[in-house]
This record gives sequence, structure tokens and C-alpha cells, in this order.
Amino acid sequence: MGHHGRRFGGGNLCAGDAPRGVVDGSSAAMNAASGATLSTAEIIAVGTELLTPFRVDTNSLFLVARLNEQGIVVRRKSVVGDDRCDLGAAVREALTRVDLVVVCGGLGPTEDDLTRETVAEVLGRALREDTEIAASLRARFTARGWTMPENNRRQARVPDGAVVLSNSRGTAPGLWLEENDRVILLLPGPPRELEPMFLGLVKTRLRVRATRNRLYSRVLCVGGRGESHVEELAQPVYSRWRNSAPSVETTVLASPGLVELHLSTRTASRAAAESVLEAAATELKEVLGNDVFSTDGQSLPEVVGGLLERKGLYVAIGESCTGGLVAASLIDVPGSSRYVRSGVIAYDNDVKMSVLS
Amino acid sequence: MGHHGRRFGGGNLCAGDAPRGVVDGSSAAMNAASGATLSTAEIIAVGTELLTPFRVDTNSLFLVARLNEQGIVVRRKSVVGDDRCDLGAAVREALTRVDLVVVCGGLGPTEDDLTRETVAEVLGRALREDTEIAASLRARFTARGWTMPENNRRQARVPDGAVVLSNSRGTAPGLWLEENDRVILLLPGPPRELEPMFLGLVKTRLRVRATRNRLYSRVLCVGGRGESHVEELAQPVYSRWRNSAPSVETTVLASPGLVELHLSTRTASRAAAESVLEAAATELKEVLGNDVFSTDGQSLPEVVGGLLERKGLYVAIGESCTGGLVAASLIDVPGSSRYVRSGVIAYDNDVKMSVLS
Repeated sequence: MGHHGRRFGGGNLCAGDAPRGVVDGSSAAMNAASGATLSTAEIIAVGTELLTPFRVDTNSLFLVARLNEQGIVVRRKSVVGDDRCDLGAAVREALTRVDLVVVCGGLGPTEDDLTRETVAEVLGRALREDTEIAASLRARFTARGWTMPENNRRQARVPDGAVVLSNSRGTAPGLWLEENDRVILLLPGPPRELEPMFLGLVKTRLRVRATRNRLYSRVLCVGGRGESHVEELAQPVYSRWRNSAPSVETTVLASPGLVELHLSTRTASRAAAESVLEAAATELKEVLGNDVFSTDGQSLPEVVGGLLERKGLYVAIGESCTGGLVAASLIDVPGSSRYVRSGVIAYDNDVKMSVLS
Repeated sequence: MGHHGRRFGGGNLCAGDAPRGVVDGSSAAMNAASGATLSTAEIIAVGTELLTPFRVDTNSLFLVARLNEQGIVVRRKSVVGDDRCDLGAAVREALTRVDLVVVCGGLGPTEDDLTRETVAEVLGRALREDTEIAASLRARFTARGWTMPENNRRQARVPDGAVVLSNSRGTAPGLWLEENDRVILLLPGPPRELEPMFLGLVKTRLRVRATRNRLYSRVLCVGGRGESHVEELAQPVYSRWRNSAPSVETTVLASPGLVELHLSTRTASRAAAESVLEAAATELKEVLGNDVFSTDGQSLPEVVGGLLERKGLYVAIGESCTGGLVAASLIDVPGSSRYVRSGVIAYDNDVKMSVLS
């Protein structure tokens, strides 16, 4: 629904039907030093709590964005519980389909953290205690005046041939494993550990193996129109841009009161990307008019705040049913103290009459 | 991390290693009229927009809760794009692992909606236009004075042997398909279509095929303590309850300022479930003291509101940096007009001095 992008495969031949692991000789030779190019990925989130009604995997949003920047397309995301069999099957399958398998979570010290052991088993590699990791874990505990629980020693176990990614924010190191031309990347589950590890240690490793193409994108925000109305007006424009070179793909995302048009293009040249995205945005603005309130992803409170500041105006907010939400969204913008003065929430009728009338 | 539940499989034999589809004779006979019992499920969300950095699948949270109520355990959740090959592979694999495969999305009228066609292909069934659905689709458009686009006729196509689940909120009907002892359920992607369809048409069908065991749960909310501190105190209690009969499983979920302990038990008797959950909750409260602010999932604003109302007190809120958030969370509770009078957001320093001092 609403997506109009390239599709893989066609006819009766699926991409997955071709035997995986057969690497084209010339490109293999080209990449001899750094390994084959990584262009497709799957993300596997591990944790029984992610199979309850209370938690969704959000790490994958961060990861998809970062992988797309490297020109890597995410083909599938999965969630499995803290279960050796389910996780093992998921990793084994993913390895037959994509170049890069990212597994998040299950690297903790407790008995239900099984990622290290399971991946080592899938790859048929032995696990050995890394004395350096064990020492640094022990030092971490000692620094706080604690004795390291024996359980934590499990976090020092490393499969043969793995590159250890140190964790600046927690006890679980990440692991980078290569198997033929594929990479298996194990990252800790908590976003505050995963994100700095990715940005600090994974990104540069990936860049070496990434395609020359990068993904560039642009977000148009539209207010005051429903999704189907926006799509009706915009579809003739983006169906044309889909066939340009480089092509522009459009994803329509609707939420209450807001329709976002995500334009993206994949190319080796930033200049080419910017020029086609700008041209596509301009055409869409002509069609959708002033309902497009930003062409760079700025939110409505940011746009309103910018206007207030540029015009040197201050705002005071009177609210009833919205109970502070209007003020809260304006104040949520950094620097909003430059134009927000005060707000009144007149919820009781007497207060309403006396303060707001 | 934080989950302490039952795990499937063990030793070197994985559940998935046993050939699927071999049904125990006696239970098959027992269920001859209604089909075999459904006890495990996988959820597959379809949509390329769910593989962008901007959208997560949230339908699965609703579905996991509803399936758990029927005693059905969700073993895996996946997201695939609008791609016939990727979706086909996901459905094919899931059918080898679980009793019930729920596919959400991709039932719309546009060319990128491929779920009907792909699932029919996986099952080797022909698709035929259902004249009743086609007529009702046409009537839907006529009622609004529109002519139905030809594209929408695709939504009337039904695989052989499918039960059609009518959609009261949109044009895409759902489909209930049976293949040997498995069920494949196709549901529309938008939550406002999926949820009423599930509650109105799917739930009763599932109940007939569900196990006698149901999942019962209880949520304790803890404020003012970190996750690891709560876990340290609570772990000796819930490790004991894990071995009771029926056993109580605990999942610890932490978010800023709040730790939730989800207790759950799976049993055929509601009375037994309530008694073990009550006993477990009581023991946990003894250990965690007044930091447990609710034992029935009530949020902090609900608890505070209840106290205000019982004591006949009214509240006025003065806020600065929180910019209306405190008022908004109190007002978000239904009936809060009985105790919330007014609020002031003094963001500017002069306003702060004059109003709040």
C-alpha cells in the first residue's frame, strides 16, 4: 500500500532460486583485498520480550537507515525468541539469501542470552574465552567495587575468526564474523549500546565492503489532505520519476493529520542525486501547492517556530481539551524559548470563562 | 535480556528438526470435526514501507495479544517487502514450522499488493473472481457516486477453498485458508480494518481450533527503581514461581521512570490462574514495597487521578520545562475533568516570576 518501488525477481524465477554463494569471478577478484561487495541484508532481533504484545523492535529503524546510507538494501526483518532452535534456523536461512546478516540482542550474561553460542554452532566454529575481554570485563566490575559474577565470563567467549567490537556502554562486546563472502554481525540489544557501537566500529568496516551506490532521500510533509487525495495528485508525477535515470522511488506514509512523501534515489553521485530529488520535489510542490509545509522533513512545530522567530513574534497558548499538547509540541523544538512565552490549560469551565474569555 | 520463560527444544534436537505435518493420530481424530489444534503461530507483515527507517509493524502487538488469549504462542514475526519472491519464501518456510500463519497487508487494489496471488501460488491453488465480493465492491463505490477502478476487481479474486472475511472498514476482504492441518490467515494491513475483522470474524473461528489452555496475565508497575535493581530483588521470587504448577513466567520491561513486571500463566482454569498470579503479585509486592504503584497495569496518572478523586481533591498544574506534559498525562485519563482544574505553562522567566511565585 502506497509504495511504488522496484521489485526483485519477476516471471517465475525468484532471486532466491539462483544458488547463493556463486560469486562472479571478476567482482570477486576486484574485491580480493576487502571481500565481496555487500548489497543486501537481513536483520534478526532476538528476545522473547519482542514476541509479547508490549514491545516492538526499534533497533531495525536505526539499522535500516544506516545500511541504506551504505547502499545496502534490507530485504527482511525478523524477530525470534530466546530460543536456540528458532534463532539458529533464522540465521541459517538468512545466510542463504543475503550478503549481510545483522543479529541484535541475546549477547547478555544470563542463561537466556544465546546468540553467541547459536551463531558459532550454525557456522560450525569453536568458542574460546578471549582473555583480553575477560580482563576488561573484570576491570569494569572492579572499578565499581564489585566482583564479577561468573555468568559474565560467557560474554568473553568468542567464535574462531571473529573480530571483537568493544562495547563502550555495556558488558556485551559485538562480533563481526565472515563466512565465505557473507558477513554476520552480532550487536547488543539495548539501543544505547548498539548505536554507538555501529557508528564507531561497524560503519567504517561496512563502507569498505559497500557498493559505490548510495541512497539519498528527501521528505516532503503535507498537511490538510488525506493519503488517497495526495496519492491521486502525486502519482502521475512519481510514476514519471520512477523511470528517470537515476530513478526516484516514492513511499507515501500517512499518520493522523500528516502525509509524508519519501523520495529516494540510489546513485554513486551526490550531485546527480540532489538534482533529481530537487526536480521531483519541485514538481510535487506544483501539484500539491501550499499543503506541502516542508520539503526537508521539518515538522509542523519546527516550521511554525521558524516563522515565529523570523517574524519576531511571541506566542502564548490557551488550551482546553488538548490539555497542554499544543504547548508541548511547540516547546519540544530546541530553541523554542525564543518565541514561546506561556500557556494556560483551562480545563475547568470556570477557569475557561475567567482566563480565556 | 530480562526474560525468564520456557524455551523450546533442547540438547541437539530442535523442534524444527522433526518432520512437520505428522499429526498424532489420536488428537487428529479428536479434532476431526474442527481440524487439528492450533498452538503455534508466525506473523508476516508485508509492505516495503515497513523496511524503511520510518515504520514499524504494530499490528503484530495486537495480534500477539489476541493469539495468546487463545493459548497460541507466537514463535516468529517477520517483515518482507512488496515482493512476490520474498513473501512466497516467508510463507513457505512458516508453513513448515507452525500451525497458523498470519499474513498482514498486501491485499489492496494496486499492483504492489501481491499477497493474494503469492499465497495462492504457494498453495498451488487457482484464483477466481468471487461475484459476490465484486458486486459488493462495486456497490461500495456506487454508494459514493464513484465508478469502481478496474484495479479494485483484483480484491474480488479468491483462492480455491478460501473462506472470505468481509471488511466492514475497507475494500480488501480477508481470507481464511486451510491446508492440511495448518491455517493461513490473510488480513488487511491498516489496523482500523484488521482489528475489527479479527475481533468480529477471526476470533470465533480460532477459538474452535485453540487449545484448552489460555494465557492469563497480570502487570505490576514499579516506579523509582532501575531495572537491574528490580530484577535483583524480584528474581528469587520469580525463579521460585517458574517452577510452580501452573508456572508463572515473568518478563521485565523497562522504560524511562517505569519498570513493568509482566506475570503470565498458561492454564485451562481461570480460577487456578487468578490464584497463582495473585500469590505471585503479593510476594513481589512484599519484596518491592511501595515502589509498586499498581498491580493491575494502571498507569501512574491513573493511580494519581484515582487518589485525587477518592480524597475529593482538585489539582492545578504549574509547569515550565515540561511544557504541558504533566497536565497532558493527567488529562489523558478518561474522567480527569473531575479533578483537573487548570494548568499554567510558565516558560518565559517573567511569566514564571509573576504566575508561579
